[in-house]
Amino acid sequence: MDHFADRLALAVTQRKTPLCVGLDPRWDRLPESIRGRYGETRSGRARAYEEFCFRALDIVAPLVGVAKPQSAFFEALGADGMAALFHVVEHARRLGLIVIVDAKRNDIASTAEAYAEAVFDWLQADAVTVNPYLGRDSIEPFLAVARRSGRGLFVLVRTSNPGAGQFQDLSCEGEPVHVRVAQAVEAWSAECRGQWGLGDVGAVIGATSPKELARLRQILPSAWILVPGFGAQGGTAADVAGAFRPDGLGAVVNSSRAILFPFEPEASDWEDRVEQAARQTIEALRSCMPSR
Amino acid sequence: MDHFADRLALAVTQRKTPLCVGLDPRWDRLPESIRGRYGETRSGRARAYEEFCFRALDIVAPLVGVAKPQSAFFEALGADGMAALFHVVEHARRLGLIVIVDAKRNDIASTAEAYAEAVFDWLQADAVTVNPYLGRDSIEPFLAVARRSGRGLFVLVRTSNPGAGQFQDLSCEGEPVHVRVAQAVEAWSAECRGQWGLGDVGAVIGATSPKELARLRQILPSAWILVPGFGAQGGTAADVAGAFRPDGLGAVVNSSRAILFPFEPEASDWEDRVEQAARQTIEALRSCMPSR
Repeated sequence: MDHFADRLALAVTQRKTPLCVGLDPRWDRLPESIRGRYGETRSGRARAYEEFCFRALDIVAPLVGVAKPQSAFFEALGADGMAALFHVVEHARRLGLIVIVDAKRNDIASTAEAYAEAVFDWLQADAVTVNPYLGRDSIEPFLAVARRSGRGLFVLVRTSNPGAGQFQDLSCEGEPVHVRVAQAVEAWSAECRGQWGLGDVGAVIGATSPKELARLRQILPSAWILVPGFGAQGGTAADVAGAFRPDGLGAVVNSSRAILFPFEPEASDWEDRVEQAARQTIEALRSCMPSR
Repeated sequence: MDHFADRLALAVTQRKTPLCVGLDPRWDRLPESIRGRYGETRSGRARAYEEFCFRALDIVAPLVGVAKPQSAFFEALGADGMAALFHVVEHARRLGLIVIVDAKRNDIASTAEAYAEAVFDWLQADAVTVNPYLGRDSIEPFLAVARRSGRGLFVLVRTSNPGAGQFQDLSCEGEPVHVRVAQAVEAWSAECRGQWGLGDVGAVIGATSPKELARLRQILPSAWILVPGFGAQGGTAADVAGAFRPDGLGAVVNSSRAILFPFEPEASDWEDRVEQAARQTIEALRSCMPSR
């Protein structure tokens, strides 16, 4: 079974960009031309999300290698939303994209196994984001499934929201909590490294503190870093530079709203705008990448 | 809008037991008489889970006031499983039970709002378990929805799994991380207290360390404590005694497998066995309750 880490490296290398397109559909931002075709029921909205994501994926798939659907927006529409998420993941994989399902799941023992079954066996995601608070028992069941099926995890280490520091930055004998989490992630990742020296357990680290990102890159030599918060959330290309290894591998940088919704709902040329936004974001990221 | 905390107090007082029945359906433990009627596809298993949970709820609803379905086992069956979970929550509420959906969700800002929409607006749960790692921004959007609709949250504070201490017990200037989380929960809960002096934000604290439980009860005077791990996971009645206030309120104690599956799959009298297990668990808990 191929390592997830190697498949990710290939996707990023082939498309020559570490950009990951986040799929965070919101009803009030969808093009009116799509909204108008579906009723505003949960089931109508779910079908509208599906159509919008399919068309956005068709536009970005030739440009980027990775997509990250946000589970919450689909879950809010109930079972119909989950069926839409299933079809969106399927479509993205059919287009050759690596799919990271952003679900921030976590639980222990057989319950964590059930979550792993949901994302890997049912949704057929390539990777999932997980929360470390419950400790190793909440990571290892996901890891076991990931290893035997060539999938990956991204563990929350340091997020970029205003309240992130409340618990993640508490100082524990000289090191903040999130550094302890990073050390654990490195240990898990070092156990499942592929041919580029990167493992199947990555870390989610926000883009709002460039210095911290560079320091965590040092603590996590074996881990892919997923950097959210690029674009609409305020991170710039210079902010994310520290996430990469000198060879330009080791990080994927997510942008959701800035690529998905660079238009007013009434715009008739929304597909052109999405393509343009994706190209501009790729260009902006290129300026900060280490040269190979 | 009635406080969730008050509705919970009423449910526990009326049934004269703090027992919460956990709904963790597992295919290989279901009665053969149910399994045999459905195919072993995801959709067949989802319908079998639904029938089993409906019948278990019919048995326990006259005895207990609270049920806690575990989202993961339903999610593992995909969109059909989520539809089954929806029906199980609906059936439990129709029987007059308070329903805590165990989903351990968390994210920030509008993403957390989408999760709150999924559990409160779509599933119509009375409360949900949430994870604190992302800080206040991951709790407050849930709290806002909970407040305006009379629902509740249970924040993970100290869990009872073997690896729980890896991050939860890290010492931060003399206090473990989970005590810092408990202090934050107390602050949130104190802001939304009902008539019994208990608030709508509770804490999940495992039953494996009775001393710690009693200490956390002191740190959390305003919070309901949800104690998992009673019965099959090894906690005893004496272990959970410290979770209660002197008036006997303030804690709900969950038991899942010991009540749901006290039989072999081929047993024809499984419903009697479930009733007997529920009655025995209630009796065992009674012995440790403060007298009123």
